[in-house]
Amino acid sequence: MADLKKYTVPGFKAGAAMAGIKKSGRLDMALICSDVPATAAGVFTQNAVKAAPVLLDMVVAKKGRARAILANSGNANACTGELGLADALAMADLTGEALGVDTSDVFVASTGVIGNPMPMDRVAGGIAALPGTLRKDGWEDAARAIMTTDTFAKICGVTENIGGKKVTILGIAKGSGMINPNMATMLCFIATDAAIDCPALRAAVKAGADMSFNRITVDGDTSTNDSVIVLANGVAGNAVIKKSSPEYAAFEAALGKVMLRLAKMVAKDGEGATKLVEVRIECAKSAADGLKAARSVANSPLVKTAMFAADANWGRIICAAGYSGARMDPNAVEIWFDKVCMVRGGVGLGPSAEALATAVMKKDEYVLTVKLGAGKASASVYTTDLSYEYVKINAEYRS
Amino acid sequence: MADLKKYTVPGFKAGAAMAGIKKSGRLDMALICSDVPATAAGVFTQNAVKAAPVLLDMVVAKKGRARAILANSGNANACTGELGLADALAMADLTGEALGVDTSDVFVASTGVIGNPMPMDRVAGGIAALPGTLRKDGWEDAARAIMTTDTFAKICGVTENIGGKKVTILGIAKGSGMINPNMATMLCFIATDAAIDCPALRAAVKAGADMSFNRITVDGDTSTNDSVIVLANGVAGNAVIKKSSPEYAAFEAALGKVMLRLAKMVAKDGEGATKLVEVRIECAKSAADGLKAARSVANSPLVKTAMFAADANWGRIICAAGYSGARMDPNAVEIWFDKVCMVRGGVGLGPSAEALATAVMKKDEYVLTVKLGAGKASASVYTTDLSYEYVKINAEYRS
Repeated sequence: MADLKKYTVPGFKAGAAMAGIKKSGRLDMALICSDVPATAAGVFTQNAVKAAPVLLDMVVAKKGRARAILANSGNANACTGELGLADALAMADLTGEALGVDTSDVFVASTGVIGNPMPMDRVAGGIAALPGTLRKDGWEDAARAIMTTDTFAKICGVTENIGGKKVTILGIAKGSGMINPNMATMLCFIATDAAIDCPALRAAVKAGADMSFNRITVDGDTSTNDSVIVLANGVAGNAVIKKSSPEYAAFEAALGKVMLRLAKMVAKDGEGATKLVEVRIECAKSAADGLKAARSVANSPLVKTAMFAADANWGRIICAAGYSGARMDPNAVEIWFDKVCMVRGGVGLGPSAEALATAVMKKDEYVLTVKLGAGKASASVYTTDLSYEYVKINAEYRS
Repeated sequence: MADLKKYTVPGFKAGAAMAGIKKSGRLDMALICSDVPATAAGVFTQNAVKAAPVLLDMVVAKKGRARAILANSGNANACTGELGLADALAMADLTGEALGVDTSDVFVASTGVIGNPMPMDRVAGGIAALPGTLRKDGWEDAARAIMTTDTFAKICGVTENIGGKKVTILGIAKGSGMINPNMATMLCFIATDAAIDCPALRAAVKAGADMSFNRITVDGDTSTNDSVIVLANGVAGNAVIKKSSPEYAAFEAALGKVMLRLAKMVAKDGEGATKLVEVRIECAKSAADGLKAARSVANSPLVKTAMFAADANWGRIICAAGYSGARMDPNAVEIWFDKVCMVRGGVGLGPSAEALATAVMKKDEYVLTVKLGAGKASASVYTTDLSYEYVKINAEYRS
C-alpha cells in the first residue's frame, strides 16, 4: 500500500462552486462524478431524525449503483419536513439533468444549519455551474466546499496492488463538532477505481466505518446528516472483487486505512481541539466492554478538560471507566500515558510518575491506555480535549 | 407542608471544623449527630469504582441504624486502595470514640481530589475538634464545610403534620461539577425527627432520590463518592411509619420535596452554570423513553452551549432527542420554550417564534418541552448551560 501524492482517481472528476448558501462567500457546493456507472455503498446516521438527503441516499445506496455525489455546506436540509424531501429530490434531479445521468444515480449530501428551508434558487445556480468545474484533480476544491467549522480540508488516498492491477482509493471528509459529534455532521465521500461487486463493497464500507468513523462517535449518537458514501467504478480493470475473493482482504484493509486517516483528521479538527488522544482500553472482559469504557473515558467532559490542561488527573479517568458499565477490577486498574505508568493496582504512583505523565500530556498526540484487569480484550477510540474554544464556537455558531 | 425557616431538627445537632485538609483554610469537616439511635438509609454511587467511605457506608446502611455522619471536603479518599479503607474506618472509629457511640453507628463521607491518601493527622485533629462545635443550629456551618467548587451552601427543610405530630425534615447537600456530574461528588445528608421503620425509610429515600438527584445525573454516570444518607430519630413521637401506614405517602412526599429542592440547588450551582432548565419530554411511548430523551437533550454539549448563548437552536434539540433511542415520530415533534411553541409537526415556526423563544432563553430558569408524538408518557430532567467558565474551572481545578 502506498500513499497517494497526487489527488486523482482514474475515471473520476470532482469540482466545486460558490453558490452563496454560506453567507461568507466561500465554496459551498461540491460535485463528484464517475465517467462510468459505479458500484455504490454507504453508511448513514442512526439518528431517528434523518435529514431529507439521507432519506434519499438510503434509497440510492440500496440500489447499489450510482454516478455522482452532489454536496452542499451551509444548510443541512434537516427537520425541513416534506418541503425538504422535495428539495433534496430536486437537487438530485437537477444534477442528473446537468450531467446527463438518471436522477436515481445521484447521491445528495447536505451539512450546515438545521431547520431552515434550502435556498433552492442559489442551489440551482450552483448545480448549473458545477459541471463546468469538474476536473480530474478537483478533489481539494471539493474537500474545501464541504467544510463548515472545519479548520482544514480533509483529503487522503492510497494505491494498492490488487490482482495485479494498481487500484486507487481517494477520500475527502468534513467533520468538526466535538470529537463526539452529537450534531456536527460528518460527511465522507470516497472514490475508487477498483472493480468490486455490491455485497463486497457494502461489507468493506461497513467494516471500515466501524473501525474509524464509529470510533470517534458514540453509537447512535450521530447527527441528522452523517453519511459515508463510496463509489467504485471498476476502471482499474482488476477482476471483480467478491466477498469470497482472495483480493477482498487487501481491498478492505486499504479502504479501512483511508477511512481511519480521514476519521483521525476529523477528530483532530474537532471544534476547539488542541490534541488528538487515542483512548485505548486493554484487559477488558470483552471487546464490547472495552469499547464501552473507551467511549466513556473519551467522552467525559472532565477527562477532556483535564487533557486540555495537560493535568494528569487520573481520578477522572478511572471514574469515567468506572461508570461505563464495563466489568473491571478496581484494584487491578492500570493507567498509562504513552509509556508512562501513572496508576497500578488501582492506586496512583505518585509525583514523579505524574511529572512524566504531564510531559506526555503536553504533546499534540498521545495514547492513554487504561487496563481494566478483567480479561484480554481491547478497543480504541479517538478523542480530543475540551477547550474554551469549543464553548465559544458552539455558543456563537450559526453558519 | 410548610417550609422550615429556622434550620434545626429536634434531637439533632450539627457542627463544622477547619482541619486544614483544604489548602484554603476554609471549613472542611462536618459532623451531624442524633441524640438517640436513628433509623438510617442511604443510596450510593453505582460507579464500579467506589470510594473507601462509600464501601464503609454501604455496610452501615445495611444495618439500618446509626447515630452520626462525619464528612470532609478537600480529599475524596477514592482510588486509595487498602490504605483508604483503613483510613475511612479509622475516621469512623475516632468519631465513635469522640461521641461515645459505636464505630458502626458512624457514616463517613468524603469529597475532593481522587487518588491522594487522606492527611490523617489533620483529619484526626478535625474529629477531635468537631464534638465541641455541635449545636442545634449548626447546620449552615455543616453545609458550608462540605462545599468544594460549590458557590453557595445548600440547605432546606420542611415540616409536615404526620399522624397528628409535627415532623421536621432538614437536608444539606453539596454538588457542583456540571449538571451531569460524571465525577463531581454529590453528597446529601438529611435528618428528620420522624419515627419510621427501616423498610419504609429505605423505600422513601429510594423514591425521593429517583425523582430528584437521579434526575440531574445520568444513571450509572456517577462519581466514586455520591451518597445520600438519611437519619430518622423518632423524636417527633409519631406512631412509627411503616410502608403500609396511611402516613407513609405524606412522609415520602415531604422527603421527596426536600430532595428535589436540594437537587435543583445542586443543578443551579453546576460549575459555570448561568441557567437552570427543566427539560421536559411529553408524548413519549413510555416513561423510560421519556427519561432517555430528556437525558439525551439535557446532556448534549451542543444544546447546553446553545442555552448559554440563549440561541433557540432547536435543530440541536431535535437531534439530541433523535439519537437518544427513544421512539418518536419526527414529523409530529413539538418543541416549546415555556409557553412559546418553536417547532410543530417537526418543522420550525419561523423568525417570530424564534424571537419569542430567545426571550424565554434569556431567563434564569425556564422549561424546555419536547413532545415526541409517540405516546402519553412524560419525564423531566434538570440541566444547566455549558459556559466558558465550566472549562475554566475544570481545566484548573485541583482543590
